[in-house]
Amino acid sequence: MFQVDDQVLMEDLKLRCSKVQSAMADCGLDAILISTNLNNLYLSGRIFAGFTYLQVEGKPLFFLKRQAGFTGDNVYEIRKPEQIPEILMELGLSLPGCVGLESGAVSHSSWLRLSALFPGAILKDCSALLAEARAVKTPYEITLMKKTGSRHAAVINQFPSVYEPGMTDQQWMTEMVGLMLKAGSLGIFRVAGESMEAFMGTLLAGDNGGAVSPYDFAMGGAGMHPSYPVGQCGIKLEQGMAVMADIAANFYGYLTDCSRIFSVGRLAQRALDAHSLSIDIHNAIAAKGVPGTACEDLYNSARNMAEQAGFADCFMGGAHKARFVGHGTGLVINEQPVLGARSKSILQEGMCVALEPKFYIAGTGAVGPEDTYLVTAKGLQCLTSSSREIVEL
Amino acid sequence: MFQVDDQVLMEDLKLRCSKVQSAMADCGLDAILISTNLNNLYLSGRIFAGFTYLQVEGKPLFFLKRQAGFTGDNVYEIRKPEQIPEILMELGLSLPGCVGLESGAVSHSSWLRLSALFPGAILKDCSALLAEARAVKTPYEITLMKKTGSRHAAVINQFPSVYEPGMTDQQWMTEMVGLMLKAGSLGIFRVAGESMEAFMGTLLAGDNGGAVSPYDFAMGGAGMHPSYPVGQCGIKLEQGMAVMADIAANFYGYLTDCSRIFSVGRLAQRALDAHSLSIDIHNAIAAKGVPGTACEDLYNSARNMAEQAGFADCFMGGAHKARFVGHGTGLVINEQPVLGARSKSILQEGMCVALEPKFYIAGTGAVGPEDTYLVTAKGLQCLTSSSREIVEL
Repeated sequence: MFQVDDQVLMEDLKLRCSKVQSAMADCGLDAILISTNLNNLYLSGRIFAGFTYLQVEGKPLFFLKRQAGFTGDNVYEIRKPEQIPEILMELGLSLPGCVGLESGAVSHSSWLRLSALFPGAILKDCSALLAEARAVKTPYEITLMKKTGSRHAAVINQFPSVYEPGMTDQQWMTEMVGLMLKAGSLGIFRVAGESMEAFMGTLLAGDNGGAVSPYDFAMGGAGMHPSYPVGQCGIKLEQGMAVMADIAANFYGYLTDCSRIFSVGRLAQRALDAHSLSIDIHNAIAAKGVPGTACEDLYNSARNMAEQAGFADCFMGGAHKARFVGHGTGLVINEQPVLGARSKSILQEGMCVALEPKFYIAGTGAVGPEDTYLVTAKGLQCLTSSSREIVEL
Repeated sequence: MFQVDDQVLMEDLKLRCSKVQSAMADCGLDAILISTNLNNLYLSGRIFAGFTYLQVEGKPLFFLKRQAGFTGDNVYEIRKPEQIPEILMELGLSLPGCVGLESGAVSHSSWLRLSALFPGAILKDCSALLAEARAVKTPYEITLMKKTGSRHAAVINQFPSVYEPGMTDQQWMTEMVGLMLKAGSLGIFRVAGESMEAFMGTLLAGDNGGAVSPYDFAMGGAGMHPSYPVGQCGIKLEQGMAVMADIAANFYGYLTDCSRIFSVGRLAQRALDAHSLSIDIHNAIAAKGVPGTACEDLYNSARNMAEQAGFADCFMGGAHKARFVGHGTGLVINEQPVLGARSKSILQEGMCVALEPKFYIAGTGAVGPEDTYLVTAKGLQCLTSSSREIVEL
């Protein structure tokens, strides 16, 4: 069996596989063939060039196009995927009658090639099944999420130390990125979805907090260039501006999401009130967020609180409003579930969700903290704990 | 017509469209429907959420899911792609009999949805057609590649200024990333291919230069964590080590690629000789690289020079050797053409290629500079000009 040094990880990988296998059994899949980095990483604990083949029972088989130190009695070196069925038959394994491919993630061309490996088999999409498995974290994953969250919070606390009056948003962002990398961030920021992409995070100052971005993040920002229109836009940080730092952390492959607000001088009262309201929403949702709660209800609760306090017009954006108040996070920043207007997801123990009840106050900027939480029997447990108050620079 | 502020860019976009349309005519495509960020950016000069529909004649139509300041009489707001054929019919346009989708890049699920928009139409893959168009840069793109290259070279010259004895590779890398961002890098590093991903670049010190990575880069490195196994690995920079800094630049959406070698003290003679040989290969290939040259021949020339000098064993890697010595670059770091062992591409004027004849010397590290060139009538013109000598730290 393929071995990793860490015995705890080894056991955890078995747990992930059996969780996926149980979901496979529920929808009649005999096997799945995984080729994306994301799900290969989930099932093996590492990025490799190749495929994971998992039957509804038994251990996974790894087919590698390049060895790269990954060995074991269930690891096979191949030049091309067409060798996979040959090897399966040599092993005396019957070819699957119903096989899952990641139709939601692999290109149509790759899908055609992979589907041809199993002539006559019924083909199903297993992308959603894997996303649902990844949404509920295993014990080892929870350990990593916790470690990432506390290290993340510690880095954020250093952000004011690298601020200097007269800086642009981009200059301060560069210093923040430096702190994050110094703390051990791997830099890489994985995001699911074909039109999503992101550098390490964004810094939104003043009215740039209300700028509409083509990317599906809660608050966008205009960005520095039309080829990457999101985040900081090169403006000078000035008196009365709210500055939202939303930089993800990735120290071990798992992302936590956390935003904190800074202000140049004192902010307009409406912005301060919106920020307080955001903290109230955090506390309300954290208490309400026990396993079994509908994610749609959490969104509606947050939205109702904003409405009742008279902040509906600036809840989750300006000209464009995000229709969600939170999202799962883990190996990608946008894991399941979505805490959104039309979400069908139900909170489960072990899910990790980033909650971001944000407000855009024209003339001031974006306010409202974001934190990553673990869903526990008692409600949401914050993994990125640090003061949520606005830090006056 | 959709307008961008820059009239030169506006004219250039027309040129890109007509180049693509000419290739479409050659393979009988009536229209293409583009949904990837990469090709939307190529055809519109910006990232947007939506689709570009280009017929074999006439101006492109842009279908946007979110407006984000992108307007014009050929820009249409939609909620879902199913509205596209309705709008085409309202405009009095006939639906295509043969339509191109980016089968090599869009997910199978998206492909199914998009292909259903044109019932009865013949569907073709237009991914390769677009990649070939992108490979040959237009005048505006060449301007951006030149500006990026010279700014890139200027940043690299600053790398020694942020080195301190006793640093780890990761610590120095963090400082280099800071310099790149301070110079205006957008951070985002686009790479084509389903299993490719990268942060801003890599720093390979000592024997880590020979570590095999699952990613298809010329030299890999072990990386800091199995979830991102490429690049610097956290080792201390020590006497006798070669340190290869391979950090791409992206100031305007276009990437230039450039590596320079630094040494802690003096390197082993064999490493110095390999580095000199690499510079000789650069000069030979630059002279040979006129339009019409087979890319395979350039690889073979480089390989033969390495062989004749007695460096075949360490050419392009250690345990794993890359089978290419260069690659196109532009909106993605791995554009066409590949200067590789089995490449069928022919150099064309206006292509931009990164040439990286690198050597891995066990016990010392990776040597051999990398530069980005423009293919001109006279051969390869270097866009990242700066001294290629090893800088002793």
